[in-house]
Amino acid sequence: MRETGCPEEDLFSFLLARRQEDLGYRNILSSMCTPPHPVAARAHAMFLETNLGDPGLFPGTAALEDLLVRRLGALMHHPDAGGYATSGGTESNIQALRIAKKQKPVKSPNIVVPASSHFSFTKACDILSLEMRTVPLDDAFRMDTEAVDCLVDDDTVALVGVAGTTEYGMVDPIARLSEIALDRDIFLHVDAAFGGMVVPFLDRPIPFDFRLPGVSSISIDPHKMGMSTIPAGCLLTRNPDWFACLNVDTPYLTVKRECTLAGTRPGASVAAAVAVLEYLGMDGMRAVVAGCMENTRRLIEGMEALGFPRAVSPDVNVATFSCDRTPPGWRVSRTRSGHMRTVCMPHVTRDVIERFLVDMGDIDA
Amino acid sequence: MRETGCPEEDLFSFLLARRQEDLGYRNILSSMCTPPHPVAARAHAMFLETNLGDPGLFPGTAALEDLLVRRLGALMHHPDAGGYATSGGTESNIQALRIAKKQKPVKSPNIVVPASSHFSFTKACDILSLEMRTVPLDDAFRMDTEAVDCLVDDDTVALVGVAGTTEYGMVDPIARLSEIALDRDIFLHVDAAFGGMVVPFLDRPIPFDFRLPGVSSISIDPHKMGMSTIPAGCLLTRNPDWFACLNVDTPYLTVKRECTLAGTRPGASVAAAVAVLEYLGMDGMRAVVAGCMENTRRLIEGMEALGFPRAVSPDVNVATFSCDRTPPGWRVSRTRSGHMRTVCMPHVTRDVIERFLVDMGDIDA
Repeated sequence: MRETGCPEEDLFSFLLARRQEDLGYRNILSSMCTPPHPVAARAHAMFLETNLGDPGLFPGTAALEDLLVRRLGALMHHPDAGGYATSGGTESNIQALRIAKKQKPVKSPNIVVPASSHFSFTKACDILSLEMRTVPLDDAFRMDTEAVDCLVDDDTVALVGVAGTTEYGMVDPIARLSEIALDRDIFLHVDAAFGGMVVPFLDRPIPFDFRLPGVSSISIDPHKMGMSTIPAGCLLTRNPDWFACLNVDTPYLTVKRECTLAGTRPGASVAAAVAVLEYLGMDGMRAVVAGCMENTRRLIEGMEALGFPRAVSPDVNVATFSCDRTPPGWRVSRTRSGHMRTVCMPHVTRDVIERFLVDMGDIDA
Repeated sequence: MRETGCPEEDLFSFLLARRQEDLGYRNILSSMCTPPHPVAARAHAMFLETNLGDPGLFPGTAALEDLLVRRLGALMHHPDAGGYATSGGTESNIQALRIAKKQKPVKSPNIVVPASSHFSFTKACDILSLEMRTVPLDDAFRMDTEAVDCLVDDDTVALVGVAGTTEYGMVDPIARLSEIALDRDIFLHVDAAFGGMVVPFLDRPIPFDFRLPGVSSISIDPHKMGMSTIPAGCLLTRNPDWFACLNVDTPYLTVKRECTLAGTRPGASVAAAVAVLEYLGMDGMRAVVAGCMENTRRLIEGMEALGFPRAVSPDVNVATFSCDRTPPGWRVSRTRSGHMRTVCMPHVTRDVIERFLVDMGDIDA
């Protein structure tokens, strides 16, 4: 550390210079995050000093966390779901698997996940000493449920399906997974970190939530399509009591026990998540998602017109292509199979799509 | 969710009403958090939309994370320490223990911690399937190092010491633990989540950091005495290469692998943490800590004058008393042994202490 402090003006010149080295979201087509909605930023600032790790000191902020869980539970067709605001999808997935593992104490626990599952499951299995069994995908990049049965055994503590895969934007056949889970009495976790805030607002929603009786828990991230600030994730469980198995005693706090992964937790991004949901309502979210889906379709149509076929017709606003070029100044990403991958987040407006297509056309020429 | 969105004005009236249900920090003497420093709040707002989970999109913010690690490493007398910005002490402790566990693959791993260790170690042991062996404390509430030797065995993957215990504000005899760790070749993790931003600024610092050759890793939380926004923790390791064992592959990101617990991670609170360190420098932090320590002494003196003896003379700004009353309108907490516990954070000014003492005197009468 420097011995003497830096004048505020110099400090903020330095910070601004660093900030300007970041890329603007304007040309980022590879991210599942997006600039926070203006009401999210405003709510965030209002709750900046709050700490959900000690809810007795911040009962108003804690009430907003309860409201967030209730709203997202209702969106997932289970208003009485249990839940709490996590730091994001990884924590939600880890905590869901902890619950599943505790519900079925076996010697060598395994979980069965689709090959498309997010890398957070690799972390979770490493941390929790779970064997990860991977189910291949079908031609449409969805989990091949035919292959599930021979991977599940008596040591399987959880089955995982994805609603809105990171790479191809697909929704796994969760309805079929729900049947298998009920049939074989296995905990079914749905990773809807991305799709949880997309699928319910589609014209023809695909079943993936608590309406399916076999679904045990759901990850859903307001800091992705919920346009909240980071970090704002949420883990929901069918039975609120399931969280009790994660409790540790918390002396010297205003509450006696705690089931969350982190201790100190920001209230600001939780207030931001609530603000967006309340401000937009179902109608507003439907409009946002309709715009993203329309842009996804326009991008696919435009790319195909340029001779770059889609890898698949996505269920959510992720578009992938057979195309190994990237126009200068743009950020796209690559799937493990080498497809160009783009995410049509709210900041990827129609105008952005058209500029991207023009630039794609130029390198093609 | 509501069908139709809520007007912005109504929404913010509702949010403000919730915020006003929170207690103000003014009368909170029980928290290890404090309102963020003004430069922290300003830096936070500037970096609100950044995501350290995809550092290639935010190279300027990622440079600030590197700077934070370098500054805190230097503060811990090891400018080349490895590290990253965590969500707080719990994540730092979990990740340190993951590294320790991987470095020594044994069948039934255990860790040896003081009875004063934070409850995050209970979580970490549950998550990582580690046996937790607890070392009793001496009369001054510090780890009794005499008892360590008979708890350590060949399956001990880590030894833990605390610099600034949550309950009594004590620094364990880390110098002695360092000798034991070297002697028995055990990973030594120091939980300095609180004390890491206090002890280096004391008139007579107590040795606890990388200057002690047996210390392997340190947790240190800018969102506590570093007056940053939440979430801002940091895990430092003696050898930067140790993080490699936590890496998972990260397709579709701008980096190829990731060792952090979370995926998406806020840059805002990291920028805020850097801002405070740069703005205050060593001199400024020394002044803040000197003020907190002076207020701690004044509180102890005042409470003893009222007939409430201290439980112990603390090493950092935590004051504990034999006193089973709490004046109305104030928040203090209780240790597991039943002592009144207070933390003299920066918001607990001399004026606050004097008002508290007057109110204590009134209930005594």
